[in-house]
Amino acid sequence: MYLIIVGAGKIGSNLIDMAVNDGNDVVVIERDEARAQAVSRRHDCLVLNTDATTNGALRDADVDRADAVISTTNIDAVNIMVMLLAQEHGVPSLVSVVHDPEHLPVFEKIGVNLMETPQRLIADHLYHSVRYPDVHDFIELEDGTELIELTVSENADMAGRSLNAAKEGDVLPDGCLVVALSRDGDVRAPQGNTVIQADDQVTVFTDDATLRGAVTAFTGDYP
Amino acid sequence: MYLIIVGAGKIGSNLIDMAVNDGNDVVVIERDEARAQAVSRRHDCLVLNTDATTNGALRDADVDRADAVISTTNIDAVNIMVMLLAQEHGVPSLVSVVHDPEHLPVFEKIGVNLMETPQRLIADHLYHSVRYPDVHDFIELEDGTELIELTVSENADMAGRSLNAAKEGDVLPDGCLVVALSRDGDVRAPQGNTVIQADDQVTVFTDDATLRGAVTAFTGDYP
Amino acid sequence: MYLIIVGAGKIGSNLIDMAVNDGNDVVVIERDEARAQAVSRRHDCLVLNTDATTNGALRDADVDRADAVISTTNIDAVNIMVMLLAQEHGVPSLVSVVHDPEHLPVFEKIGVNLMETPQRLIADHLYHSVRYPDVHDFIELEDGTELIELTVSENADMAGRSLNAAKEGDVLPDGCLVVALSRDGDVRAPQGNTVIQADDQVTVFTDDATLRGAVTAFTGDYP
Amino acid sequence: MYLIIVGAGKIGSNLIDMAVNDGNDVVVIERDEARAQAVSRRHDCLVLNTDATTNGALRDADVDRADAVISTTNIDAVNIMVMLLAQEHGVPSLVSVVHDPEHLPVFEKIGVNLMETPQRLIADHLYHSVRYPDVHDFIELEDGTELIELTVSENADMAGRSLNAAKEGDVLPDGCLVVALSRDGDVRAPQGNTVIQADDQVTVFTDDATLRGAVTAFTGDYP
Amino acid sequence: MYLIIVGAGKIGSNLIDMAVNDGNDVVVIERDEARAQAVSRRHDCLVLNTDATTNGALRDADVDRADAVISTTNIDAVNIMVMLLAQEHGVPSLVSVVHDPEHLPVFEKIGVNLMETPQRLIADHLYHSVRYPDVHDFIELEDGTELIELTVSENADMAGRSLNAAKEGDVLPDGCLVVALSRDGDVRAPQGNTVIQADDQVTVFTDDATLRGAVTAFTGDYP
Amino acid sequence: MYLIIVGAGKIGSNLIDMAVNDGNDVVVIERDEARAQAVSRRHDCLVLNTDATTNGALRDADVDRADAVISTTNIDAVNIMVMLLAQEHGVPSLVSVVHDPEHLPVFEKIGVNLMETPQRLIADHLYHSVRYPDVHDFIELEDGTELIELTVSENADMAGRSLNAAKEGDVLPDGCLVVALSRDGDVRAPQGNTVIQADDQVTVFTDDATLRGAVTAFTGDYP
Amino acid sequence: MYLIIVGAGKIGSNLIDMAVNDGNDVVVIERDEARAQAVSRRHDCLVLNTDATTNGALRDADVDRADAVISTTNIDAVNIMVMLLAQEHGVPSLVSVVHDPEHLPVFEKIGVNLMETPQRLIADHLYHSVRYPDVHDFIELEDGTELIELTVSENADMAGRSLNAAKEGDVLPDGCLVVALSRDGDVRAPQGNTVIQADDQVTVFTDDATLRGAVTAFTGDYP
Amino acid sequence: MYLIIVGAGKIGSNLIDMAVNDGNDVVVIERDEARAQAVSRRHDCLVLNTDATTNGALRDADVDRADAVISTTNIDAVNIMVMLLAQEHGVPSLVSVVHDPEHLPVFEKIGVNLMETPQRLIADHLYHSVRYPDVHDFIELEDGTELIELTVSENADMAGRSLNAAKEGDVLPDGCLVVALSRDGDVRAPQGNTVIQADDQVTVFTDDATLRGAVTAFTGDYP
Repeated sequence: MYLIIVGAGKIGSNLIDMAVNDGNDVVVIERDEARAQAVSRRHDCLVLNTDATTNGALRDADVDRADAVISTTNIDAVNIMVMLLAQEHGVPSLVSVVHDPEHLPVFEKIGVNLMETPQRLIADHLYHSVRYPDVHDFIELEDGTELIELTVSENADMAGRSLNAAKEGDVLPDGCLVVALSRDGDVRAPQGNTVIQADDQVTVFTDDATLRGAVTAFTGDYP
Repeated sequence: MYLIIVGAGKIGSNLIDMAVNDGNDVVVIERDEARAQAVSRRHDCLVLNTDATTNGALRDADVDRADAVISTTNIDAVNIMVMLLAQEHGVPSLVSVVHDPEHLPVFEKIGVNLMETPQRLIADHLYHSVRYPDVHDFIELEDGTELIELTVSENADMAGRSLNAAKEGDVLPDGCLVVALSRDGDVRAPQGNTVIQADDQVTVFTDDATLRGAVTAFTGDYP
Repeated sequence: MYLIIVGAGKIGSNLIDMAVNDGNDVVVIERDEARAQAVSRRHDCLVLNTDATTNGALRDADVDRADAVISTTNIDAVNIMVMLLAQEHGVPSLVSVVHDPEHLPVFEKIGVNLMETPQRLIADHLYHSVRYPDVHDFIELEDGTELIELTVSENADMAGRSLNAAKEGDVLPDGCLVVALSRDGDVRAPQGNTVIQADDQVTVFTDDATLRGAVTAFTGDYP
Repeated sequence: MYLIIVGAGKIGSNLIDMAVNDGNDVVVIERDEARAQAVSRRHDCLVLNTDATTNGALRDADVDRADAVISTTNIDAVNIMVMLLAQEHGVPSLVSVVHDPEHLPVFEKIGVNLMETPQRLIADHLYHSVRYPDVHDFIELEDGTELIELTVSENADMAGRSLNAAKEGDVLPDGCLVVALSRDGDVRAPQGNTVIQADDQVTVFTDDATLRGAVTAFTGDYP
Repeated sequence: MYLIIVGAGKIGSNLIDMAVNDGNDVVVIERDEARAQAVSRRHDCLVLNTDATTNGALRDADVDRADAVISTTNIDAVNIMVMLLAQEHGVPSLVSVVHDPEHLPVFEKIGVNLMETPQRLIADHLYHSVRYPDVHDFIELEDGTELIELTVSENADMAGRSLNAAKEGDVLPDGCLVVALSRDGDVRAPQGNTVIQADDQVTVFTDDATLRGAVTAFTGDYP
Repeated sequence: MYLIIVGAGKIGSNLIDMAVNDGNDVVVIERDEARAQAVSRRHDCLVLNTDATTNGALRDADVDRADAVISTTNIDAVNIMVMLLAQEHGVPSLVSVVHDPEHLPVFEKIGVNLMETPQRLIADHLYHSVRYPDVHDFIELEDGTELIELTVSENADMAGRSLNAAKEGDVLPDGCLVVALSRDGDVRAPQGNTVIQADDQVTVFTDDATLRGAVTAFTGDYP
Repeated sequence: MYLIIVGAGKIGSNLIDMAVNDGNDVVVIERDEARAQAVSRRHDCLVLNTDATTNGALRDADVDRADAVISTTNIDAVNIMVMLLAQEHGVPSLVSVVHDPEHLPVFEKIGVNLMETPQRLIADHLYHSVRYPDVHDFIELEDGTELIELTVSENADMAGRSLNAAKEGDVLPDGCLVVALSRDGDVRAPQGNTVIQADDQVTVFTDDATLRGAVTAFTGDYP
Repeated sequence: MYLIIVGAGKIGSNLIDMAVNDGNDVVVIERDEARAQAVSRRHDCLVLNTDATTNGALRDADVDRADAVISTTNIDAVNIMVMLLAQEHGVPSLVSVVHDPEHLPVFEKIGVNLMETPQRLIADHLYHSVRYPDVHDFIELEDGTELIELTVSENADMAGRSLNAAKEGDVLPDGCLVVALSRDGDVRAPQGNTVIQADDQVTVFTDDATLRGAVTAFTGDYP
């Protein structure tokens, strides 16, 4: 893909890293001279040291053939201006960081495809980490449903028990569903008679009512 | 829980927001006066306007009864100092943002329980968004395996097809596993004869080899 | 009218001056504390010392009943964000300064009613002043046509001559049209037999071809 | 013409743009190094990177053969010093931006030929735009008289009516005078029997008493 | 006298000191807040903390009844603006510091009564001090003529010699004239037969040709 | 002479100017890079861009053969350090600017030969100028005695009168002594019968009691 | 003692701490407002928030009855000015930090009683620490002689050996002298027959030639 | 030794000086460009102009073969991060400056071999200097015991007296022990019959109770 990345701050430079390593054709627009030079030195990509909102910077970046423009600056107002200018050129994929959640409707309205509110995402992970130290990762679905991934502890109620036995013994809360199990590198959909073992990594659908019970059942421990 | 949050920048203040709204007992330590005042005005929590690494700031925050100390400043060196000081006081849960991935082993070694490298996390999401615009969220598992969540499009090969039929017709790549399906608010583990419908949300285990095929099969479209 | 003026820099404060003196109901949003205080001291209007793009500033300004939002900050990206947020609230009249002419299409596209590119407007006036020192003011019409206002000099060819006589004697270039004449405080549409006198103020339609001839005819002098 | 332009800020650089494109011989004096370099790169003109008020900067700019010196800096005190120094060299045309209206008498007294108070000019246009959204441009004459330009709307009272009919029917306020009419690119002085049509551009003399009536008559709509 | 002093930097505050101690009625205009407060604390005079070139500062200082306005700021452009504004109000005595000697003609032309170029004055004294360490003070007259004041040394040729004897013995250069002599607190015009004594303070007219000889004759010593 | 000048601010650069033009061998030590370069460009002298109080800067300036070290920086503490270091090297002539009059005893005690308190000197001249606008220059002697220089006005009492006649007629205050008179370029010691003429430049010894009378007698005018 | 401490930076505030806790009468002069306030809050002493080199600060600190003035600022030029001013007042003990070793002769010459060059002292200790990790502390005497303090290791040659035996067995280098021994809290001068034991703290005179041998003998280990 | 020194501030550069002059192999890591260049110019060592806590700076400094890493920056948090990173690489000797005494336990816990709290060390010396001006240097031992070095004055009680005589005459306080005596360059352990002479340098063990008496006995003078 031909990608234009606006902003080479910490988010931006991680993104450049991934995109270049993956073999994409990347152009970076960064206003700060020192950052622009740092990117030039480290990566094999074109770097324009200019303000993306002025003087035909996007044109210099050959925006008309870009597959995506990704705006990662710290200022939502700059990000929206970049999105609007890119839209003028018919770029198919418009992606932007949005810092203030109150700005989300504006980005949506002008048709930005995908947005991230980074600080909230991080805070979410940190808070989750404090509340459920045994949960490695999670996907939030609508209405409080979550897909969580955890490792089964030796002293947990579920260790050594089949899913069917767990249901019968009320060890697992109703409505909580084990959708996948990873053991020794193999990933499988567990059956009712699958016996959960310590050190298995399980992925479980839970909701607000069952989350706590599920974590306790698999890890034996709830803060 | 009794939580001490160090740093009230953007990540920190999102975290304070969540933690206070959730009914936790929160103390914030923030060095910058303007930020400290902003937190005081907005939230019902104690705010100490001081440098967390000096002059008994943690003691003033009553660190000895804290369940967790979460360090969210922009400087890894400050975060590690906060973790070490908190550890001196025997705080059970030590959580920190770590900006430079090269610092991760140091945080691990001194025994920090949980870490986040925020810019990489965001960049990951942005890049994923550009590559797979139809994937809403994902969990990266070890060795290139991923759990992805997507919505089935009307014009996709999988729409109107059972999982068994898909396997037989080579529509779904081998080794890619549909672990969950959410339709009209219900979450279930699909069976071989479950017919996938447009607008279903499916969660699929994939790996490097099957990711592209899986996305195409469910969304009919690959950039 | 109920007007929200964003930015109290030099343009903004002149505007506040006019709008308040004219009896409008004015709310000012200005980020800089010193400027905000200066406006408060000088004018009878509500001043919000906050960033117009964040934290419900427009809501605090009661944007839903505003007749117009006028954005006068120095940064186009901020101005466009303000316009977008105001549009969300259905404000009928959206007016903004636009500094970079390349941004005009973007403002137009999102439907901003009226825009000004101030530095170009001033430069236009300065340049006109240097080229045609005798022209007091002017309106640029499409295709190089201009409406210019000048004062007739004593030693000019047109002084003491009727419009008809001027045409016959080729004193006035063809296609240049005297549309109005102001003498002793009276404004009238001149007729063919109206005799132009020294010190009359005339308003003349000219184009690129006739401008120079017209200025010379009425002022006797061309730099 | 041989022009010396002092200051290459936003006003100054728009002016340089116009003056150079028009084929004038331009010398720019700009104190800030970055701005001076930007002008050098973009335009074919001599740029002196120095303070126009010191060290013979004007002499280096060959002020003795200049047709005009135009001072566009942000500080009135600097502008007046430049005007005084230019006057020492007998420059025929002295033009300056004046930011504080209270300084106008001083500029006049030392004999500056032409002045502009930019922020007031812009504010004037913005305010006019909010009050009379249908008026495109205007010239303020003495004593509240204005020459305004507007486009006739289909649903306006004047659409399809001759000027004579309008007067008889009291559609147009007394004392308001249509001095010119532009239709399909032609500019003419309308006669009593000229019928005004939708989409005509008309130029009208008005005063405080008639302005509102005139705008309503031609556009059918008054805020 | 009623004096307005603009600027309370080091020169300004020394001046305020003298003027207030001498019983004048003094108003100070100083832009910097800290300096303005320092003057207020130390002196019994009105201090306006504002920019003398804006917003009717001079009017607030009651400029119409001032005997003199003295501008002591570091920036010549500000000083000239103050002089011009004071002149508008008909202040009888206009005095200003002028830092750049090239600006002197401009101050003269607008009719500033008295000017000082401080850095040159100091440098003059320092340089004189290095060249003629025995000369206490001096007045430069036109064409290299100087009036110098020195103390007679015991081992000098002039010590114990009458002026007539000195002339005959060629001890004093021709054209160098002893105009005054101060001994034991008495000041007198010396006669030809006055005998110069060690420790007398003499005031001597000299020119470029005689300066060195005169200093040597009275002090016996030339660097 | 071989001179080391420390500091190239405004005082310093005027001094460098004089010293170099006069043919001295000059070394300049200036800490600020921009100033050091400016001196290098303008003058034919060695410039050391370093802090005069550190790292052997004086040694690099070959202080051991210097006839004088002159310190002109803005900070008395720096000036005294320079004087002490120069004294270590036995420099014969030590000259320094002293800004705070309270520091004079310290400079005297360590044996600095000559000092100037510049702001006081300037303020003195400005204040003198306001009080006696007709006095061109002056030397302050001990105990309120002053030597003043002024030009005789046509309408003054002394114009056309001999010194003897003036004494008899009580036109000149007792104790005020005309020590020199400059007419058409000649300088002479006036005799009792010398007739003073308009436009003569006279030098007069006065004291507190006679100053005002003397100025009035020669200029006819006292503010 | 009555002590005036100039400067409340890190060195200064440690010193204030010691001096106040020890019951001295302390006055602190600190220019920076925040630091001055911090000292006031923490200690029971008078704090003057002013520049010690100006405006009679030392007089306000009642310098005439001070036993010592100790200058701890970061700038040697300021320290020397403080010392000179204190000397003017006849303060018996003048103590100062001196940062640049080249300035030591100047401080000595003006009669400062005691000086410390802090960065060199620290660097000395750090470097000593790296070279001789087993040496706890040391005093440098003239000509490379040092008094070092170390703890005897179990596996060292000297452990369990009398001083006489050590000499005979060439275990201790000639000329290295054990002057004191501290065991179980008792300090004594060891005799020839005193047996050194592991964990004894010994103080040894060494010179360049014997240092290495001595350290090895007592600690068994040399890097 | 192969040494990595982090930070080239004042402490750091003194240390570099010592280490390089002593023939060690030194690598310096300094973040500030100007400081890094200054070190490069002055010393024969490798200088890395980078942040020691990021981007493999220690790896570039070849940390794996370093004998010691010495961190001398002003910020404890940076110093601890450097220590932790160096520890990861198994560096045998870890030495750091620690500014805040409250951080000492943290440095100790992670196993830093040696630490210095510089400002306290300097303050200690300054305070000692003021209290005991005759004591040249000292080592603080545990429990208030000190080893002090002083020079015997002519008028002291101990001058001309043997140690035995001193004890008998109660001239020396009990428990104070003369451990060494340096006379004419020779260092010896004094015997009971050794006669102390003026100008001898003696090293004495004292404690809180005997310090004052000892100083008085040898110097005859106590402030």
